Amino acid sequence: MALTREQLIDTAVGVLSEFGLADLSMRRLARELNVQVGALYWHVKSKQELLVDVAAKLLGRVPRPPTPAAGTVPMAIASLLQQLRTALITVPDSAEVIQLAQSMRPEALAPLGWLMEFLELAGVPRQEAPYARHLLLNHLLGSIAAHQEFQALAGGSGTGSGPAELGQEAFEYGMRVILHGLAIEHPANVG
Amino acid sequence: MALTREQLIDTAVGVLSEFGLADLSMRRLARELNVQVGALYWHVKSKQELLVDVAAKLLGRVPRPPTPAAGTVPMAIASLLQQLRTALITVPDSAEVIQLAQSMRPEALAPLGWLMEFLELAGVPRQEAPYARHLLLNHLLGSIAAHQEFQALAGGSGTGSGPAELGQEAFEYGMRVILHGLAIEHPANVG
Repeated sequence: MALTREQLIDTAVGVLSEFGLADLSMRRLARELNVQVGALYWHVKSKQELLVDVAAKLLGRVPRPPTPAAGTVPMAIASLLQQLRTALITVPDSAEVIQLAQSMRPEALAPLGWLMEFLELAGVPRQEAPYARHLLLNHLLGSIAAHQEFQALAGGSGTGSGPAELGQEAFEYGMRVILHGLAIEHPANVG
Repeated sequence: MALTREQLIDTAVGVLSEFGLADLSMRRLARELNVQVGALYWHVKSKQELLVDVAAKLLGRVPRPPTPAAGTVPMAIASLLQQLRTALITVPDSAEVIQLAQSMRPEALAPLGWLMEFLELAGVPRQEAPYARHLLLNHLLGSIAAHQEFQALAGGSGTGSGPAELGQEAFEYGMRVILHGLAIEHPANVG
């Protein structure tokens, strides 16, 4: 049976999830799929393009939330970010993949569009919404990277003697601070 | 003349600054220094340990700011973060190196200690200061990574047709929002 682009993406998600980005080479994917490397380039122009699809697939696990009612927008933003964190936290190097994808083709990542909508509903002017989203994503991806770094180091030493983990509690703290700050920065906020 | 640890760190900073993290192997460093790879391990136990030293050296370019007077603490925090951004932005993959170093040995990175002091001066309770610092660093490192990703992609395509850059203005916006948010989260703030 001929290889489909969907199979290629699913296999890439599988390799990333199990082994991390360092193992995600086109050669490795061809081996997994039992095809020649050249056959992969019939479906994607480059590994970077494939990584955008992988990022979209990972974020695709998060369902589109209903449009929040007035007064509940900040809560909806926090909840969306929390769902993104849950979808990404167990996938090694997911922060790096999302970072690359959002630089290359943010429009391929549906939840980033929802986030933009919600920020505008929260009273963030259209011109500044990309900045606000950037701040939220920096916190999301930094939180994921720090967690995975901690896990990798703890796995190495096997003891709890390293620095304390900055986990879920630190993530929620940061989200709270950002949402407070947005309300002050944009006082016309309809939240 | 015998190799010193200082020379090893300086060479590593040089290779990182010019070529990026992918080129920073122990083999490459040995070649640059004209020694056997084994000689490097007399000075550092591992590449990770060396990367902590590299991170400390990069951040060492930022001088210790004077302790801020009451009323100027948020400004001092913003200024310190700005200086860290300036010190790191031209070094490829610096965000990744700092992320690793702060997970492994945050106490080796002096500016992270200053940041903690300033946050406490701003009224952030000691227990939550690591969370606040985590949020600030997530924004700093995310801002640097996004900038470098943008530069790399723009260099590839040679045109400005890609997504807009999230640069200095987006960084300052995020800092402002975080500092507003900290003042709300910690109203006992003496800022």
